[in-house]
Amino acid sequence: MPRPALPGRPVTKRSRQDRPTRQAQILETAARIFCEKGFDKASMEDVADAVGLTKAGLYHHIGSKDELLFAIMSYGMDLFEEKVLNRVMTIADPLERLKAALRGHVLLVIRDRPKEVTVILHETNALKGRFRDRINARKKRYIKFLEKTFREMTKSGAARRVDPSAAAFAMLGMINWIYQWYRPGGRLSDEAVADALSDVFLGGILARPPGPA
Amino acid sequence: MPRPALPGRPVTKRSRQDRPTRQAQILETAARIFCEKGFDKASMEDVADAVGLTKAGLYHHIGSKDELLFAIMSYGMDLFEEKVLNRVMTIADPLERLKAALRGHVLLVIRDRPKEVTVILHETNALKGRFRDRINARKKRYIKFLEKTFREMTKSGAARRVDPSAAAFAMLGMINWIYQWYRPGGRLSDEAVADALSDVFLGGILARPPGPA
Repeated sequence: MPRPALPGRPVTKRSRQDRPTRQAQILETAARIFCEKGFDKASMEDVADAVGLTKAGLYHHIGSKDELLFAIMSYGMDLFEEKVLNRVMTIADPLERLKAALRGHVLLVIRDRPKEVTVILHETNALKGRFRDRINARKKRYIKFLEKTFREMTKSGAARRVDPSAAAFAMLGMINWIYQWYRPGGRLSDEAVADALSDVFLGGILARPPGPA
Repeated sequence: MPRPALPGRPVTKRSRQDRPTRQAQILETAARIFCEKGFDKASMEDVADAVGLTKAGLYHHIGSKDELLFAIMSYGMDLFEEKVLNRVMTIADPLERLKAALRGHVLLVIRDRPKEVTVILHETNALKGRFRDRINARKKRYIKFLEKTFREMTKSGAARRVDPSAAAFAMLGMINWIYQWYRPGGRLSDEAVADALSDVFLGGILARPPGPA
């Protein structure tokens, strides 16, 4: 199943770096409207109005509200893979790979991806059938990447012997919860949050940790 | 503002320990329906049907759907405070206090509080005005408790010097994310999840942690 097409010029490296493409604008606006009104209450007309298209114009490009929801989540995963996962997965040293993934993911959530896209991305249960399977498969790929990295770290002596799945979900929970409490302009800068969360996850809380099991 | 009254016999120690009270049944059922249908789509009639009351009977006890949402969140916080916070906050040693809070909170989320009540409790943005303020104040009390405990641990030499707010939100994120991935009957038992997450949060991932800053 091809990704649903959306209006807008083709995504080139240059245009993405300069400013959001028209496609990104539409998906980010739709995400904001779904968050504000709730997915059920928001209509395709609300979205069309906000992006300056007629309702028919929007339907010309997107077959249904479900497809639009899937397109927003796909866009959220695109950003994550492009800006974080694809950049770090080639790092040979597992500790450096984990550090880069942790920092990159925190900064993506804090400043490089609209909060509303992150919120929508967590609502996979709102998706149906194959749409849900496709997003979940992309999320699972990241979990497997983290588990593999933890195993390599333990093998190389860089990490204690922790449960790789529990560690992966602990890290994801810590990061995915950020939008619930972080407010831009507060006491902690985005870099300070990335430092503090990396410090807690890597080093733990205790002064005298349990050591390898 | 008094908590909204709900039908049911008075909550006594005995009845709560034996089986859910009628009030708890109603709130847990309403939480399930809100999760399944979405808060906006679910009607008071849906809730009344599911708990075996007429719509008028339900409105006799609960003034509005917003009040019902607030009652579910209050119930979720009641369970947390009764089963976790009130039991651990008198523990003198800060490390033992944190360990008990961490373990108790994980087990509450996994097995002692219906998943749907936890989900609803995270949707504070759906609440309005004073309802929202009241739930947020109870959540904030827990954050303050954790920050104070981390500070005491650092002072006593039990903890490294971590940012207390970042550590508190890292712990909450890790715990509040559990319902997204934990499936009863899977590879990890509830006790194993509590052990693994406590191990990661307390000891961190690294074999050679950074030590006190």
